[in-house]
Amino acid sequence: MKIARMRTGRRVSHGVVEGDEVIELRGSIFTKFRLTDIRYPLSEVKLLPPTDPREIWCPGLNFLDHLEFAGSVLGQETPDVPKHPQPWRKGRNAMTGHLDPIILPKDAEGEVHYEGEAVAVIGKPCRRVSPEKAGRYILGYTCGNDVSERAWQGSDWTFWRAKGSDTFAPVGPWIETEIDPQELDLNVRINGEQVQSCNTADMLFSFAEVVSYISQHATLRPGDLVFSGATGVTTAIRPGDTVEVDIPGIGTLCNPVQAEFDSSAA
Amino acid sequence: MKIARMRTGRRVSHGVVEGDEVIELRGSIFTKFRLTDIRYPLSEVKLLPPTDPREIWCPGLNFLDHLEFAGSVLGQETPDVPKHPQPWRKGRNAMTGHLDPIILPKDAEGEVHYEGEAVAVIGKPCRRVSPEKAGRYILGYTCGNDVSERAWQGSDWTFWRAKGSDTFAPVGPWIETEIDPQELDLNVRINGEQVQSCNTADMLFSFAEVVSYISQHATLRPGDLVFSGATGVTTAIRPGDTVEVDIPGIGTLCNPVQAEFDSSAA
Repeated sequence: MKIARMRTGRRVSHGVVEGDEVIELRGSIFTKFRLTDIRYPLSEVKLLPPTDPREIWCPGLNFLDHLEFAGSVLGQETPDVPKHPQPWRKGRNAMTGHLDPIILPKDAEGEVHYEGEAVAVIGKPCRRVSPEKAGRYILGYTCGNDVSERAWQGSDWTFWRAKGSDTFAPVGPWIETEIDPQELDLNVRINGEQVQSCNTADMLFSFAEVVSYISQHATLRPGDLVFSGATGVTTAIRPGDTVEVDIPGIGTLCNPVQAEFDSSAA
Repeated sequence: MKIARMRTGRRVSHGVVEGDEVIELRGSIFTKFRLTDIRYPLSEVKLLPPTDPREIWCPGLNFLDHLEFAGSVLGQETPDVPKHPQPWRKGRNAMTGHLDPIILPKDAEGEVHYEGEAVAVIGKPCRRVSPEKAGRYILGYTCGNDVSERAWQGSDWTFWRAKGSDTFAPVGPWIETEIDPQELDLNVRINGEQVQSCNTADMLFSFAEVVSYISQHATLRPGDLVFSGATGVTTAIRPGDTVEVDIPGIGTLCNPVQAEFDSSAA
């Protein structure tokens, strides 16, 4: 089942996507809901990030083939293979939806890169769950883009703006609830050309392991998001580009890239 | 004016504190509200953290007399005096209210310390505001405790659990809207004994400067919290302790300290 969050007129609601339609639902996607008779063509609703999370978690280095690249961005040696996740919090202010623009800050000091990732959506509160049971607390999976300004990532003490500037967290288009999260192909395309390709089978720590690890000290809540981590080597996005994060079986998150309007130049 | 957020029965509302009473209000504390005729004795309401923020920001090292200590915690040389804030995000999962317990994780590897701080409460959305104008976007100030597990702070890649474990962000008891934020005395007491004393005049970057800096890349929203940063050298808290963060003119945030129940020992 594919669950979307959408704005229709002034109303925000959830719905179930079937083909090119979305059926509005009543109730909570985390507890109990029923379908209504209200159907919209997908093309006529504004898709929002599928939840309004309390926290957005990323696992730190989670693909072997990203280690060397990450070391070079941070101006450090290639890091050792991590023995456990190294979670960090991505900014909620950065969230943006399917088809919304990624805005390149006018004062960015380096290149801004895509990082296509799969994203787990927490379905139930969890605290101190085991890796074996963590999957039960996940509602489903969606696509995300951990947009990153590489100069700030190397120079700042934290990722607050390198990965947390406004619009640097596109998420969507919807949640797929019935899918094997550790067998997902993931492709990133810029202007239709494939630039990144991986499979979540190669995650060093599975979604269940990452969720379990975080839950030892921080309660996860329904709607919280947990990114997979990035893979490989990434490249810059430019104004006018279109970035697609495509996970067959889930869907495609598509975002145009814009330059920030520079009012000081007006 | 002192604005509190409270639970009465099943209802959550805001109120204005006058003496030992709180007067319930209708409307939004961020836009327009009016007082009702409903009054409660302060002793009969459960005070909650005064807002439900989208982000909790901390400025990084922001007092000269904390630099050497911070370096020792991180296992590094004493850091240089920062040239600008180094913001980081504290976990919303960690928030807890006045009189709620700070719970020491059963698997903490080091000491857990208090860090008494003043906290700005954002009142209006702001993006790219100047330091001169940033004060207009701040509704008022409250007390906070940046509770920190010192071993994790040194060993982990980020502060996700060192400063973001559940209950590690007590905030309250209420917001004071009419006060000079850069002339606040701040005292921390453990079991009545003073252990920390400072004045916000010694902040390296004022609240307005920190808010302005963050707003260059991340939109701040009504209710978001911005901590002052910690001062001096801190010490451990133990189960059974009571920690008070007292800012004359605002109020006193008081939290008992408890050990986490260790179900594996049961």
